[in-house]
Amino acid sequence: MQIYVKPKENDLIQILRRPSYDLSKVEKIVDPILDKVKRGGDRALRKFALEYDHVELQELWVSEEELARAEDQVPKKLRKAIKVAKENIWKFHGAQRTSDLDMEVIKGINCSRKSVPIQRVGLYVPGGSAPLFSTVLMLGIPAIIAGCEEIILSTPTNRLAEVNAVVLYTAGLLGIKKILKVGGAQAIAAMAYGTETVSKVDKIFGPGNQYVTVAKQLVAKDMVAIDMPAGPSEVLVFVDKESNAAFAAADLLSQAEHGVDSQVILVSTSKKKAEEVSLQIEEQLKDLPRKDIAKEALKFSAAIVVEDREAALDIINKYGPEHLILSVSKPEKLAAKIVNAGSVFVGEYTPESAGDYASGTNHTLPTNGWARSYSGVSLDSFYKKITFQQITPEGLRSLGPHIETMAEAEQLEGHKNAVTIRLKHLS
Amino acid sequence: MQIYVKPKENDLIQILRRPSYDLSKVEKIVDPILDKVKRGGDRALRKFALEYDHVELQELWVSEEELARAEDQVPKKLRKAIKVAKENIWKFHGAQRTSDLDMEVIKGINCSRKSVPIQRVGLYVPGGSAPLFSTVLMLGIPAIIAGCEEIILSTPTNRLAEVNAVVLYTAGLLGIKKILKVGGAQAIAAMAYGTETVSKVDKIFGPGNQYVTVAKQLVAKDMVAIDMPAGPSEVLVFVDKESNAAFAAADLLSQAEHGVDSQVILVSTSKKKAEEVSLQIEEQLKDLPRKDIAKEALKFSAAIVVEDREAALDIINKYGPEHLILSVSKPEKLAAKIVNAGSVFVGEYTPESAGDYASGTNHTLPTNGWARSYSGVSLDSFYKKITFQQITPEGLRSLGPHIETMAEAEQLEGHKNAVTIRLKHLS
Repeated sequence: MQIYVKPKENDLIQILRRPSYDLSKVEKIVDPILDKVKRGGDRALRKFALEYDHVELQELWVSEEELARAEDQVPKKLRKAIKVAKENIWKFHGAQRTSDLDMEVIKGINCSRKSVPIQRVGLYVPGGSAPLFSTVLMLGIPAIIAGCEEIILSTPTNRLAEVNAVVLYTAGLLGIKKILKVGGAQAIAAMAYGTETVSKVDKIFGPGNQYVTVAKQLVAKDMVAIDMPAGPSEVLVFVDKESNAAFAAADLLSQAEHGVDSQVILVSTSKKKAEEVSLQIEEQLKDLPRKDIAKEALKFSAAIVVEDREAALDIINKYGPEHLILSVSKPEKLAAKIVNAGSVFVGEYTPESAGDYASGTNHTLPTNGWARSYSGVSLDSFYKKITFQQITPEGLRSLGPHIETMAEAEQLEGHKNAVTIRLKHLS
Repeated sequence: MQIYVKPKENDLIQILRRPSYDLSKVEKIVDPILDKVKRGGDRALRKFALEYDHVELQELWVSEEELARAEDQVPKKLRKAIKVAKENIWKFHGAQRTSDLDMEVIKGINCSRKSVPIQRVGLYVPGGSAPLFSTVLMLGIPAIIAGCEEIILSTPTNRLAEVNAVVLYTAGLLGIKKILKVGGAQAIAAMAYGTETVSKVDKIFGPGNQYVTVAKQLVAKDMVAIDMPAGPSEVLVFVDKESNAAFAAADLLSQAEHGVDSQVILVSTSKKKAEEVSLQIEEQLKDLPRKDIAKEALKFSAAIVVEDREAALDIINKYGPEHLILSVSKPEKLAAKIVNAGSVFVGEYTPESAGDYASGTNHTLPTNGWARSYSGVSLDSFYKKITFQQITPEGLRSLGPHIETMAEAEQLEGHKNAVTIRLKHLS
């Protein structure tokens, strides 16, 4: 791990610069896929499954039988863990409910605001070597709490057209029954545009490879909302001279193993500690099954030694990490000053993996600096808020003349007239 | 106005289809503007002002003097109206504050969520024939209540390099002092990328012409969030046989005068009433200053006669109008069943213009069917929510093993190890 000691402002900008990707090549591949699904529907989905995933999909949807069978295929210990995680995530997301607003702003003018669940949502769960059943929890639970009418889960199968049993078990546990056996850009297209058997959704959630990411970006132009712009996963770990270097190294590696493009940053008020962490990383890497991926990611990582906590705080808030681990003594005061981060892990006994799986917070978080303007997925992400106003004749008599004045000043006589005509009728 | 009596499902889809625009031509114009501002900074802004707006900008920013002078240039009656509107909007948006969440999910696992204001926001206020000072209220008030550190307002000037006095007065009333004398795509670029004197913002809000809209779309790929995707303004007015046809006609015209691409839909349970409204439109059009615009917009409008309230409700929720006026008897029950709309105007004495200016709700709303998945601008739009978790050694002892089990099942040994290494240390 490259260690930078008190870098100058300009160097710091370079060190913290995230790699930018030219996705135009991916767009050229994804665009025709979207188009073919839009026009070909289910037939196109079957064709892509054969072509890309070498799987013959007789049925596009998981059957009730398959769903029922899943439980027995999941070890009891894992089922228990998933249930514990579910409870925690449910509690924390359930507590995010807000009450609707209803107020008389002035006499005769009533304004209200109501949270209404988005009717149809699509949840994408990546497959590949390790199917991410934790994503089923993180997206499924708030969708169910919000009360979305239709929840579609889309995920790729193996070559025998089977969806991973743990994914099925987790979906079943939540009561999600509509599971589409489709992965990749074609899954996003199916949910965005609808097919003979897939109903078009209003919002698509979920992580994925660059094809999925680009597909989400492209359909977002086309009347489907998406959860947030995606980028490679990131962690920033902050340590001081008291910190446990082995813990910090483990946290950095847990991020680095995600993908070769993962962003891993260490900030330390102690040069010695930064060196210790770096050594610990070398040590722990040896036993890591995904060490090739982690090593690649670490090439672009950095350890930054800073003067004091203030300097660290400045770097953290400028960088806006997806995950921030405050592995320092007295972390609470620091936590209160964080303004740009996706999720914050406070104290040495709070590893990122706790939030990835089971603490209760959501693991779908803004990457790539988007923490400056975006929140992670939460219960809010599954609602839209509609405002209402109701004005009595008395209310319009008092407010109407002001509306007329403003409309006239904006040269919108039609707007003014909609009030005038009513006031005349009242007098 | 074309009247459709109980159209079949397929015809209805055609009638309610929103026009789609090919913005690729606009993109070709906007893209180099963005690029030039990105590279040329303030100099590029001055050059574009000269080239497009024929104005020589000595100063890019409104001076304190200009701001102070504005009050005297605004008629007292208008100042009063703006103050009343400000109070109402402030009350309703202030009431949207939510308390932060802090809970012990299980013993030793604390999760919390905090609303943190987006640090730097850019508000775009269009100029043109009628400068929209109401937009200053609608965007400025929630930005100030949220506590955004830096608020930049950008708006074009006249040829004498003056910003409209009412816009200045309204900004001054709110305490917004950073006013950039730049309009169009170049304003969006300046706020998105920053220049020598403009600091880069985290999120851009505000309406605008197609150049502004496209510029917002393009910079949104580049690490700046935007309020929402934009489209032409819309209203759907629902009437029954009891309704006042003149009111409904005035509401439809108030939307139609916005622009030639405005969407105007009437839904009626009475054919006779639809005909009355149509006649009233012809009548009221005669006196409307912006009648040429309104006439053009009305060409694409439709009046749909339906069987009953249920059928009307179905159309409304399928269409998802930006503005919905329930100009019928007993509108409250119906309002409770609306699931897709930006803002709802309940009852005959609640014209859309009330919400456009002064009732207290926000007028920046989802168009083009986006009401299915987006909310209008609200206090929420100026915050991001950060989650926190803090785990005690005791908490990790109880939850840790479940995290290990899940991480292992997802084949992420690094994630598992971040827990294992801590549990070992504790034992």
